[in-house]
Amino acid sequence: MADWLDLEQRFFCTPLRAHFMMFDRTIRHCRQCGAPVARRLPDDGDTKLRAICTVCNTVHYENPLNVVGTVPVWGDQVLLCQRNIEPRKGKWTLPAGFMELGESTSEGAARETTEEAGAQFIMEDLFTVMSVPRVGQVHLYYRARLTSDVFDPGHETMEARLFKEEEIPWDELAFRTVKETLEHYFADRRAGHFATHAFDIA
Amino acid sequence: MADWLDLEQRFFCTPLRAHFMMFDRTIRHCRQCGAPVARRLPDDGDTKLRAICTVCNTVHYENPLNVVGTVPVWGDQVLLCQRNIEPRKGKWTLPAGFMELGESTSEGAARETTEEAGAQFIMEDLFTVMSVPRVGQVHLYYRARLTSDVFDPGHETMEARLFKEEEIPWDELAFRTVKETLEHYFADRRAGHFATHAFDIA
Repeated sequence: MADWLDLEQRFFCTPLRAHFMMFDRTIRHCRQCGAPVARRLPDDGDTKLRAICTVCNTVHYENPLNVVGTVPVWGDQVLLCQRNIEPRKGKWTLPAGFMELGESTSEGAARETTEEAGAQFIMEDLFTVMSVPRVGQVHLYYRARLTSDVFDPGHETMEARLFKEEEIPWDELAFRTVKETLEHYFADRRAGHFATHAFDIA
Repeated sequence: MADWLDLEQRFFCTPLRAHFMMFDRTIRHCRQCGAPVARRLPDDGDTKLRAICTVCNTVHYENPLNVVGTVPVWGDQVLLCQRNIEPRKGKWTLPAGFMELGESTSEGAARETTEEAGAQFIMEDLFTVMSVPRVGQVHLYYRARLTSDVFDPGHETMEARLFKEEEIPWDELAFRTVKETLEHYFADRRAGHFATHAFDIA
């Protein structure tokens, strides 16, 4: 019950709450031996409460996750994907997903673009780095230059299509990080110079 | 035994191997119920083997970790910390450490700079974003402007001191990410312009 309240407190009122409730990451048992864990201070001078095994004393750290994706561009149009999965099923997003072990941020961003949109593209520079501490995530988007306007979306995507700036469904975007990234993209395009933008989303 | 071989294969020959061997993150038991896990494909279309509970079917994802730090600058000098902990005890590093839940990348970088160097500083722009897929990490460094040349290092640091470019102990640096960040810093300083540098370290 205490764990559940922790989770509620951490994620309540966030757009991604539903997502996190489906993937409860709260640590109740030790990954090494299976015994229950207790929240206490480790013995190494650490000042944060950690989930520590009551039998073998393994310390379980919980850290933020990276979400990696792209802004795929075809001429004056940007590729968006209509989500076919929760959270935010039916809403529009840039292709993105959780970074995996064994890949770099740009490799992960390219993989997600292939998986979600079936797009062909050339990766360009890192564009946005957005911390979202409320949900324990960092979102990193790269610009990508599409080499075809034919797409073959995967099962996570209902539709993949190109939008001009004036066609972007601003009120139907899935996540604030997508909205912020698109706003910076169009602003930089008007200014004639693309930078890397790093900022926090409260 | 299979898990151990996986770990060896993943981290063998890396500078951080010793660190990872001290913090074995291999998942053997379910965090929800404590039962053993098995490596298999989930039922949701995922194409990667995951640690899945043999009793309650909880899927355990393993994802890269972020390391966040700063390049603290005082005039023409950069602050380095001599490590008082393994791995790389006695070697020199920029202040940095694992990003925690509840903080942004810049907040984590500032926290580590306070903890490891006891420095007073003003945070500046994101400077390097380096993926190190071999060890499942992304390192992010911010530039920081020191407002005092008096330091009060914590228990993880033997000594915190300022170095001019020609004094940097290049052969005694703790990590390749620190070397790359310092090289980019001095190159940008010579060029008179600081950019954000994103690249992979094989």
